Amino acid sequence: MTLQDKIKTTLRDVKDYPKEGIVFKDLSTLLLDPQLTNEIVDDIIANLPSKPDAVVAIESRGFWFGSLIANKLNVPFLPLRKKGKLPGETESISYDLEYGSAIIEIHKGHIQNGWNVMIHDDLLATGGTAKASAILIKNQGGNVHSYTFVVNLDFLGGRESLETSNVHFYSSVSF
Amino acid sequence: MTLQDKIKTTLRDVKDYPKEGIVFKDLSTLLLDPQLTNEIVDDIIANLPSKPDAVVAIESRGFWFGSLIANKLNVPFLPLRKKGKLPGETESISYDLEYGSAIIEIHKGHIQNGWNVMIHDDLLATGGTAKASAILIKNQGGNVHSYTFVVNLDFLGGRESLETSNVHFYSSVSF
Repeated sequence: MTLQDKIKTTLRDVKDYPKEGIVFKDLSTLLLDPQLTNEIVDDIIANLPSKPDAVVAIESRGFWFGSLIANKLNVPFLPLRKKGKLPGETESISYDLEYGSAIIEIHKGHIQNGWNVMIHDDLLATGGTAKASAILIKNQGGNVHSYTFVVNLDFLGGRESLETSNVHFYSSVSF
Repeated sequence: MTLQDKIKTTLRDVKDYPKEGIVFKDLSTLLLDPQLTNEIVDDIIANLPSKPDAVVAIESRGFWFGSLIANKLNVPFLPLRKKGKLPGETESISYDLEYGSAIIEIHKGHIQNGWNVMIHDDLLATGGTAKASAILIKNQGGNVHSYTFVVNLDFLGGRESLETSNVHFYSSVSF
């Protein structure tokens, strides 16, 4: 079985979550299989064009694999969190959601000037959060090295919304 | 320098977070140092009396090291999250905070009967969340194998509030 098939048969669809009509891809079932978890981390790393200087992972499901990717690459790990969740000085950005808006934050001063930073999340939907993350990283002096996801909901057009002409993009599986 | 000293000099105190009068221990600065991050994971694992069957980590800072510990032990990782954040069927528990209460949830059916489960969080304060986590694990058919933390704020008495007479307890540093 290919890794893609393993992932597709292991993750589960949860209907009507977080609201009616949405079929949610629950990745928590992947983490019950440590071997598969490792294969996913290795797959994302094996497909990188070069080694990033740091991994920024998006709260909070992005922490699951993001922490493992940073560890395996032996580079710093930075959490990107919702408003008010990071202590100390932060930079914030507000971005639009389907209904309303959200705010995410990054620690000031944790990205070194010129660092090439991987943005990681468990799943790419419309790309709003990943796009906002890229702006925060650039404002903090970094470059966006890559966008990586375990799952890409390709039919939602997230990839097209990201500036990936000169930036590595990879997801282990697409729907 | 001992690991304890490295941790103490690397994490940072953030005053008046999340509210006035509280000095918050910010562990995110530990994750900027991949070598130190690894040493902390190894330290927690080296001090275990035996290998657990799974690691349950508490949202969301618990995911940072919890994910790495589970990976290194090659065992399943389960997230324990705030109300409404886990898709699919869950079991919930409400517990008291200093002011008000909180609800945490675990996925139903993800813990196998008789599993010995590590409960991990980044930091132990009063122990309310860890105690509630233990009840959820037992209700789901598991045994509490161990409580592990990177930091224990010992002066808050969390350790005494947990039933640790027959359960392994470890934190890399205490204050």
